[in-house]
Amino acid sequence: MTTGVRRRMGVEERRQQLISVALDLFSHRSPDDVSIDEIAAAAGISRPLVYHYFPGKQSLYEAALRRAADELAERFVEPREGPLGARLLRVMQRFFDFVDEHGPGFSALMRGGPAVGSSTTNAMIDEVRNAAYLQIVSHLDVQDPPVRLQLVVRSWVSLAESTALIWLDGRTIPRAELELQLVHDFAALAAVSAAYDTPMAEIVRRILGDEPADGPFGDLVGRLFSLAPLPAAELPGQRTG
Amino acid sequence: MTTGVRRRMGVEERRQQLISVALDLFSHRSPDDVSIDEIAAAAGISRPLVYHYFPGKQSLYEAALRRAADELAERFVEPREGPLGARLLRVMQRFFDFVDEHGPGFSALMRGGPAVGSSTTNAMIDEVRNAAYLQIVSHLDVQDPPVRLQLVVRSWVSLAESTALIWLDGRTIPRAELELQLVHDFAALAAVSAAYDTPMAEIVRRILGDEPADGPFGDLVGRLFSLAPLPAAELPGQRTG
Repeated sequence: MTTGVRRRMGVEERRQQLISVALDLFSHRSPDDVSIDEIAAAAGISRPLVYHYFPGKQSLYEAALRRAADELAERFVEPREGPLGARLLRVMQRFFDFVDEHGPGFSALMRGGPAVGSSTTNAMIDEVRNAAYLQIVSHLDVQDPPVRLQLVVRSWVSLAESTALIWLDGRTIPRAELELQLVHDFAALAAVSAAYDTPMAEIVRRILGDEPADGPFGDLVGRLFSLAPLPAAELPGQRTG
Repeated sequence: MTTGVRRRMGVEERRQQLISVALDLFSHRSPDDVSIDEIAAAAGISRPLVYHYFPGKQSLYEAALRRAADELAERFVEPREGPLGARLLRVMQRFFDFVDEHGPGFSALMRGGPAVGSSTTNAMIDEVRNAAYLQIVSHLDVQDPPVRLQLVVRSWVSLAESTALIWLDGRTIPRAELELQLVHDFAALAAVSAAYDTPMAEIVRRILGDEPADGPFGDLVGRLFSLAPLPAAELPGQRTG
């Protein structure tokens, strides 16, 4: 872990190094199982020196979580170019990259636990959720999103979280399938909300109307249609009605 | 709160009374803001006597949460009779009854906080989620549910949670709308999963095939169809293809 060249790090540089080392350890095992001794060893410094920079494991954990939270929020940032389905798919791919890289730490944090649950960590989680919400809403080109659209986007962010947690618990379904499925879920949740609300229907029609037939949304519609319980003959009338 | 008749309660009776009083207080305000003094006053006993039955606020909180968890798990129990959509709607109505009755306490618990987050409370939350999952799966008449069906049901339980939390934060959307929407969301999540997986498609076709056209699922299909981005002429071909 050390370069062999022993030079003296500045305070901020040393703090950042400790945060990197701690984030790596907290990501790969449950944070409850990571000791200050291990962090000191991985950083190549003594245990008392760790305490010189951070008063305890909780403050180091929170600093590592702060960095992870900023990193995760950044992964939701996507240029506003091209079809929405493709944008959401790229966001979900980056989200699953993050979840993959920080698996055990992400699970422990989201499920709560002695070392990881505090009002500080919960506030950071809520902050990331809100950043994700604001990013997604910004792609929908809606001034003052109606409350039903807010609900759809926030619910979808929460669905992405729970899907990722279920994926981490065994990784039985390929993540690429889940990334695409979440894009479809977005369309599905929006469409359900639109089914009974006129302003939502206008927003969803505009969003889906811009989608190419061979994009993730277009492909889905044809497949869903084949599952419909109603006789085919009834549908064209409902479509124009 | 007292009847005026001062009779001596047995130990278990007194414990149950304290749990009832505490659950009521913890439900209506954030548990962090409820003191042992208030619980004692509401129960009509002295503060030292509360400590005789429970070593501290955390143990009383956990006992109250235990009762609430059992109660919530029971609300997911539904007779296996009639169409699935109607069953799920009754379950969601009872779930929102519960959320309505225990609003602030439910929010505080699910968002985590100093007094409410512990490995004990998190284990109880997971237990209720699992009870809800098992109940819903039992309605689908599937032996050994495939992993994609497990994902759909677990995701949906999580979606019901997050929808309820968003509802509690302002109550701007009528709860009856959200109860129905969640039933639709179930069908939508299942249909999305079915779109790319043959065993899921068979399960979903069977489930939706049994639904009456005027039930919550049947109604939704026609409405969703009117939002589809593809030209109507393309769809009948895809249906049979």
